[in-house]
Amino acid sequence: MIKKKRKNVVTIGGGTGTFVLLSGLKKYPVNLSAILSMADDGGSTGVLRDELGVLPPGDIRQGLVALSESSQLMRNLMNYRFENGGLEGHSFGNIFLSALEKVGGSFIKGIEEVGKILNIRGEVIPVSEEDMRLIVKLKNGKILQGETQLDHNKEIRRIGIEKIYLKKKVKACKKALERVKKADIIVIGPGDLYGSILPNFLVEGIAKAILKSKAKIIYNCNLTNRKGQTDGFGLADYVDLLERYLGGQRIDLVTYNLRRPPRQILERYKRKEGKGVWVESDDEKNKGRRYKVIKADLLSRKIAKSSKSDKIAQTRSLIRHDPDKLAKLIFSLL
Amino acid sequence: MIKKKRKNVVTIGGGTGTFVLLSGLKKYPVNLSAILSMADDGGSTGVLRDELGVLPPGDIRQGLVALSESSQLMRNLMNYRFENGGLEGHSFGNIFLSALEKVGGSFIKGIEEVGKILNIRGEVIPVSEEDMRLIVKLKNGKILQGETQLDHNKEIRRIGIEKIYLKKKVKACKKALERVKKADIIVIGPGDLYGSILPNFLVEGIAKAILKSKAKIIYNCNLTNRKGQTDGFGLADYVDLLERYLGGQRIDLVTYNLRRPPRQILERYKRKEGKGVWVESDDEKNKGRRYKVIKADLLSRKIAKSSKSDKIAQTRSLIRHDPDKLAKLIFSLL
Repeated sequence: MIKKKRKNVVTIGGGTGTFVLLSGLKKYPVNLSAILSMADDGGSTGVLRDELGVLPPGDIRQGLVALSESSQLMRNLMNYRFENGGLEGHSFGNIFLSALEKVGGSFIKGIEEVGKILNIRGEVIPVSEEDMRLIVKLKNGKILQGETQLDHNKEIRRIGIEKIYLKKKVKACKKALERVKKADIIVIGPGDLYGSILPNFLVEGIAKAILKSKAKIIYNCNLTNRKGQTDGFGLADYVDLLERYLGGQRIDLVTYNLRRPPRQILERYKRKEGKGVWVESDDEKNKGRRYKVIKADLLSRKIAKSSKSDKIAQTRSLIRHDPDKLAKLIFSLL
Repeated sequence: MIKKKRKNVVTIGGGTGTFVLLSGLKKYPVNLSAILSMADDGGSTGVLRDELGVLPPGDIRQGLVALSESSQLMRNLMNYRFENGGLEGHSFGNIFLSALEKVGGSFIKGIEEVGKILNIRGEVIPVSEEDMRLIVKLKNGKILQGETQLDHNKEIRRIGIEKIYLKKKVKACKKALERVKKADIIVIGPGDLYGSILPNFLVEGIAKAILKSKAKIIYNCNLTNRKGQTDGFGLADYVDLLERYLGGQRIDLVTYNLRRPPRQILERYKRKEGKGVWVESDDEKNKGRRYKVIKADLLSRKIAKSSKSDKIAQTRSLIRHDPDKLAKLIFSLL
């Protein structure tokens, strides 16, 4: 019997979408490398960046927990948020990664240590080890500083984003470039484009490495749109925006979720994000395009819970991909 | 060849003295159980107790690090103190233990988890899992609340301590009682009597268990005296105070350090703690007593370093026992 060589699967993203994707993919026999955005500067992560001068731990922590095969206690610990005093709002995992960076002198080394303790399947890689600061330019020319603006600035919702870029160029983490180069498959998203995915492509060398890579490139299309960011977007609009930042048409496959969430949840989204909140499949626009669309039921039926003291999490998506449905589909495409 | 059964060695104390003792003893083939005071309410530990309502992690953290056989990085991490922002002054290990207590619902379980991560030789046991609050009564009848007073209250230095007691009775941790019962040898100190050692005897059941135990009981006599606490004490005075709180004469052996520290360090101590800072061996007073005195060079020649952000550590002792000399002597007494 010939044992098939495990495929190298590289995911690119950040935030909850990547957490969902990794939670599903870790159950399959693949070599999994998760490249995560380092642009986060809000919440507990933002405070630690500012006060301690560390790299943003939030997305990395979520990635580590997603890939962890250790006890539920240890995973709960990583996500535990303090509810009182000077530690209020900080998640333990963020403090853990920041302290290790301080003690060990290297963020990457800290991630490796926590990865060992959490017994992770695969590896978690920051897209850059340099200080990434996101700038958001609005359609009226106004400049906003910081990724956290995307979640909290009402002007963005009213005026809309012209483009995002980095305050200062940053180099890619060497390991991230190596993994992209050797990838058999690269999975982009799901996740907020401006907040979690595109910042990765702004890091020097990453977009170029993806364009040059021989991997099959899958994009997990978002389920819903965000006001001021992706108003009324359909699948083709998402691919266009992605490829604009990638600098070339390179997406091979796009997964699209067919199942709609319960009416009352969708109504709640519409009240917040506008009428065109649901991402349509753009069947007409997709004709003649390079990418192929794969449609399936990918929706989670669970309603996401969030901690009281995690103010950001409370605004996070109730409409999510299902980790197992998504991972099963992706594995079938290998 | 008959393999000798490993002896059960139980240490009782807290603070730096116990850290030194455990660091040495862990190198010997014994079953090591460290029972630690839970009366600390100063510094990072005090803040966490007050803000989060957790048990005091400081002494437990030091015990875990002392027994750890994991990488230097992990041990440095546990003792790492944050230097800025809301986390300032907290040691990472204290935050770790507090978060685990919050998540897992049990302090003991948290200690076990950290013990596994740090790969400890032996076990660390809090003397009680209840909220211990120390009361200090001065010789003028004045009542002071909190163990931290012992380090910071100038009235204590001027007036002197009449006695200490607990604000409210607390039960002993079951495991602590079991270990005392099965101990072949019980090692008390070194460490501040009022701050680190006697609080253990105030916990319901502990003193009684020690008196009843068949173990050989060793007391590592302090090197120096503290103003207002043990002014001008010699070895016999230490034993008397200990046995007063134990409720019976039960000490079998007392180790006494013969070597004096460099003159300039002793002078520094004298300026702070008064002329009678050096603990004399009390040869005359020891005659006819139950205990035997073992004299040896037990002094550390290293000068202790302390972190800038650990304000308490800066006042801690420069004159210390040497872990290896102390452990070697104790092992020879088994």
